[in-house]
Amino acid sequence: MSQAQGKQGGNKSGGGGGGGGGKPQTAITPTRAENFPEWYQQVVKEAELADQSLVRGCMVIKPWGFGIWENMQATLDAEFKRTGVQNASFPLFIPVSLMEKEAAHVDGFAKECAVVTHHRLEAKDGKLIPAAPLTEPLIVRPTSEMIIGASFAQWVQSWRDLPLLINQWCNVVRWEMRPRVFLRTAEFLWQEGHTVHETEAEARERALQMLDVYAAFARDVLAVPVIPGRKTDGERFPGAVETYTIEAMMQDGKALQAGTSHFLGQNFAHASGIKFLDRQSQLVHAWTTSWGVSTRLIGALVMTHSDDDGLVLPPRIAPAHAVILPIYRGTDDDKVKAAAEDLAAKINAQSFGGRNVVCRVDHRDLRGGEKTWGWVKKGVPVRIEIGPRDLEQGVAMVARRDQGPKEKQTIALAELPAKLPGILAEIQASLYAKAEAKRVSMTRRVSNEAELRAMFAGEGGSGLAVGFFDADGAAEAKLREELAVTVRCLPMDAASVGIAEKQGPCILTGRTTSRVAVLARAY
Amino acid sequence: MSQAQGKQGGNKSGGGGGGGGGKPQTAITPTRAENFPEWYQQVVKEAELADQSLVRGCMVIKPWGFGIWENMQATLDAEFKRTGVQNASFPLFIPVSLMEKEAAHVDGFAKECAVVTHHRLEAKDGKLIPAAPLTEPLIVRPTSEMIIGASFAQWVQSWRDLPLLINQWCNVVRWEMRPRVFLRTAEFLWQEGHTVHETEAEARERALQMLDVYAAFARDVLAVPVIPGRKTDGERFPGAVETYTIEAMMQDGKALQAGTSHFLGQNFAHASGIKFLDRQSQLVHAWTTSWGVSTRLIGALVMTHSDDDGLVLPPRIAPAHAVILPIYRGTDDDKVKAAAEDLAAKINAQSFGGRNVVCRVDHRDLRGGEKTWGWVKKGVPVRIEIGPRDLEQGVAMVARRDQGPKEKQTIALAELPAKLPGILAEIQASLYAKAEAKRVSMTRRVSNEAELRAMFAGEGGSGLAVGFFDADGAAEAKLREELAVTVRCLPMDAASVGIAEKQGPCILTGRTTSRVAVLARAY
Repeated sequence: MSQAQGKQGGNKSGGGGGGGGGKPQTAITPTRAENFPEWYQQVVKEAELADQSLVRGCMVIKPWGFGIWENMQATLDAEFKRTGVQNASFPLFIPVSLMEKEAAHVDGFAKECAVVTHHRLEAKDGKLIPAAPLTEPLIVRPTSEMIIGASFAQWVQSWRDLPLLINQWCNVVRWEMRPRVFLRTAEFLWQEGHTVHETEAEARERALQMLDVYAAFARDVLAVPVIPGRKTDGERFPGAVETYTIEAMMQDGKALQAGTSHFLGQNFAHASGIKFLDRQSQLVHAWTTSWGVSTRLIGALVMTHSDDDGLVLPPRIAPAHAVILPIYRGTDDDKVKAAAEDLAAKINAQSFGGRNVVCRVDHRDLRGGEKTWGWVKKGVPVRIEIGPRDLEQGVAMVARRDQGPKEKQTIALAELPAKLPGILAEIQASLYAKAEAKRVSMTRRVSNEAELRAMFAGEGGSGLAVGFFDADGAAEAKLREELAVTVRCLPMDAASVGIAEKQGPCILTGRTTSRVAVLARAY
Repeated sequence: MSQAQGKQGGNKSGGGGGGGGGKPQTAITPTRAENFPEWYQQVVKEAELADQSLVRGCMVIKPWGFGIWENMQATLDAEFKRTGVQNASFPLFIPVSLMEKEAAHVDGFAKECAVVTHHRLEAKDGKLIPAAPLTEPLIVRPTSEMIIGASFAQWVQSWRDLPLLINQWCNVVRWEMRPRVFLRTAEFLWQEGHTVHETEAEARERALQMLDVYAAFARDVLAVPVIPGRKTDGERFPGAVETYTIEAMMQDGKALQAGTSHFLGQNFAHASGIKFLDRQSQLVHAWTTSWGVSTRLIGALVMTHSDDDGLVLPPRIAPAHAVILPIYRGTDDDKVKAAAEDLAAKINAQSFGGRNVVCRVDHRDLRGGEKTWGWVKKGVPVRIEIGPRDLEQGVAMVARRDQGPKEKQTIALAELPAKLPGILAEIQASLYAKAEAKRVSMTRRVSNEAELRAMFAGEGGSGLAVGFFDADGAAEAKLREELAVTVRCLPMDAASVGIAEKQGPCILTGRTTSRVAVLARAY
C-alpha cells in the first residue's frame, strides 16, 4: 500500500495540475468519468478503507474505514439513546423452524441464507470434514426480527412493559452473488432497532421518528442529502406493512437506499406471539417496528463526495480532522518537529461537531509528495504543512481537501487552532451544498412514459426522475425489467423534489393522482 | 420478571432482616451457601442481565447486562487506543483449509466449530432444507488468528509497517457441550487484539503490556483482585509460545480465568506467511501476539461481589450509579416528583471514575418494597428515597448496596450531589477490599501432596493452593483427573500470593525449585 502511494505521489507531486498528455493527472485511475465502478474500487483501496477478504463476498474493514464506522456508531448510538432506546445482544443463529413462522419474511431471505449444519470438524483421510450434524440447521442471521421476537414474547406481559425500545449493533450475513465492497457484501455490520408498542399510532410514529433520526444524520453528519419517503408494495421489507427509506443519489446519478425504518403492523407480533394485557385487561397482539443502517453508508459516503484524487470526508465523520505534515530539510528538524507537536496539541484541545478535534502528525520519513498524496487519497479534511521557513515566519500552509490540491492558505500558527473549527464547518457545509447541487442538477421532472424512457435509454441513463405516479406493481416490474429502473420512494415532501402541484397525471397511466414518485437506477 | 420481583419484594418489604423460620430471608433463593451454581443463575435472572435463548447454548444479553458490557468496552477500548491500538473488522467465516495451516491451533478448536456448509434454503415437502452447498465449508470463527493473519501477510511488507497494532470487538462461536450463561456459551462477545512486531523482545513486551492493561482494569474498574501469571505448557492457548493470564477467585473458592494475552512467537507468522524486509533488507518472519477478554467477565463480576440479595455492582462498571425512588403518598406527589427530577439532574452533573454519574428516577407505580427490591437485585450501588416528609426536612434517605438493606443515612438534599462521588468511591474501595480479603482467606500455602489432596478432598474442596511446583504435564494431568484441580498460573509475583522465599521443595516432586504455582478448581 505504501508503495502504491509512493508511485502515485511521485507522479503527482512532480506533475502538478496538468500532465503530459493534455489530460489532468489524477491520483485515482480511472477517473469517475472513465469508469465510475472501477474508480469506486480504487478510491476504497487507495484510502485504505477496506480489502476484499479471501472469504468470498466478505470484507476486511481496515482501521481508516473502521474509524468512519466508529464515528457513525457513536453518533447514532447517542441519538438512539436520546429517544429512549437501550442496547442488547441477541444470538447470531436462528433455527430454520423459527424463521419459517413469518411466510413473507422467510421467502425474502431463504435464497441468501448461510446455513450451519454441523458443530465439529473431524480428520478423515488427512482432511478436516464437518462432523456432528445439528438436529436442526441454524441460519446465520440475515436480520433478527424472528430471534428477537422470541425474546420479546417473553419480556412483554402487560401494557406497563411497553414501549419496549431495543437496538443491537452486530454483524449479519446475506449471501450475495455479486458482492461489492461496502455496498453489497455477504457479511456486513449494522444496527437493527426493534420496538414494541401498545398502539398502531405509536408504532407508526416510532418508525417515522427513526427515519427522521437517519435523515438528520445523513444530512448533518455525512453531508449526504437524502429524500425521505415510503416504499411501494413491491419494494417493501419482507413482512412489513410500511417501509420508510432515505434515498441518496451518488455522483453517477444512481440512487442508493441509505437507511430504512419499517412499520411491521402486527405481522411479527402474530408470528412471534408478542401479546400483552392491555389497559382493559384484554390479551392483545402488540405493534412492532424495526429500523437499520449498515456499513453500506460508508459506500454512500465514498460515492457522494470523493473526487478523482480519492476519498473526500466530511469533517463530522472523518477519523481525523487534520494532519500536520512537517517538512524536514535537515536543518532545524527538531524545532519543526516540536512546533508540529505543539500545534497538534493545541488543535486537539478544540472541539467541532460535539467531539474533540483530532489532529495527527505524520512524522514518517517519506518524500513530501508521497506523504501529501497519501493523505489526499485518505480524504483528511485539512492538511497543514510546516517547514523551517514557515516556522521562522510563525505560519503554516493550510490546504482543504474540498479545494484543489494546490490551493493553500497561509495562517499564523498562533491563530490556527482557534480558526480550525470554523474551517471544518465551512468544509462540512460546502460538501453538503455540492452534493445537493449535484442531485438537483441530475433530478428531472418527467411527465410521461416517453420522457422517462428517454432519460434511461441505454447504459448511461442516470439521474432521478420525479413525477406523478399511480401505476401498479406490474408496471413497476416492467420498468425494472426494461429500464433497470425502480421506484426509489414516494417522497414524504413532494415539494422537496421540485413538485409544487397537489396533483397531476401519472407518468405511466395518465390518471390524475396526488401520489409522487422518485424513479432511478439504483445500487 | 416484574411479577417475580413483586413477589420477592412483597416478602422482603414485609419481613425485614429476619424471617419466620429463624433463617434470614433473602431476595435470592437458594443462597450461596445452599447452592452456589443455582444461586448464580438466579442472580443473573433476577438482575435481568441475560436469558437463555432458544438456540442451544446461546444467550440473550438484556439491557442491564449489556450496559455493563458497554462500560467494559468503553473503558478497555480507550486503554487499548492509549497504547496505539486501532480497531478494524475481519470476516466471521474462516475457510477450513486456512484453519488447518497451524496444526496445534486447529487441533485445539476443531471439536467445537460451528460449520457453514450451505448458502441457501429451499422448500421441499413443505419444509425448508439447506440447499446450494459451498465448495469449501466455512468455520464460524472461534478466534481469528488465521483469518487476521491472512490480512496481515498482505499489510506487512517492511519493518516500517511495524508494529501493527489491531483489535476487533466481535462475536465468536465455540460449541460448548455444557453451556452456562456468561461463563461458557456457544456464542460470546469479546475483543481480540492482534499485533505484529519486528523483534521477539518487542512482541513479548506487548503481550505483557496488555496483561497489565487487563489486570489494572480488573482491579480498578471491576474491583476484582486478580493474580497475573503464566500458564503451564498444558494450559496454553493452542499455537502460543507463552500464555499470560489473570486469574480471579470466585466466592465459592473456584478460580476463573478472566483474560489472557499470548506471545505467539513466529508460529502464526509462519502459518500465515507474515514476512517483512528487515532493516538489513532480509526477508524474515514477524513476531505476533494476541489477547482477549470476553462477556465471561460479567460472570466473574457476578460471582465476585454479589450476595444473597442479588447482584452487587462496583460503581465504576454499573450502568447506573444511583436510582432515586420517590415515595408517593397521594399528597404533594407533584412536589416529590419535581424534587426527584431536580436531584437527579444535579447528580447527573457530577462525575466519577472518568464518566458522568448516571442517576435514574424510578417513577413506576409499584409498591415501595417491590421497587426497592428490584433495584437491590439489580445491584445499583446507591438507592435514594425521597418522600413528602423528607422533602419538608430537606433530606433524602441514602442506602448503599454494599451495606445491609436496612442501613440508611440521612443526607441533606443540598449536599447529596457533591457527596455522591465520594460515596461511590467508598463503595468501589470496600468491594475490592472485601473480595481481596475473601481471596486471602481462601488461599492456602501447601507444602506437599498430602496437604494439596486434603484441601481438595471431595466435592466441597475449594480455594487457591499456592506452593513451589516443578512437576511435569503428566503430573498436572493426574491432578486434573483425580482432584479436578489445575495449575491456574505461575504467578509473576510470588510474594503477592504469600510466598516470600526464593525457592523451596516442589509440593509433588520434593525437588528444590524457584517455580511457584497457584492451583485450584476452576470455571
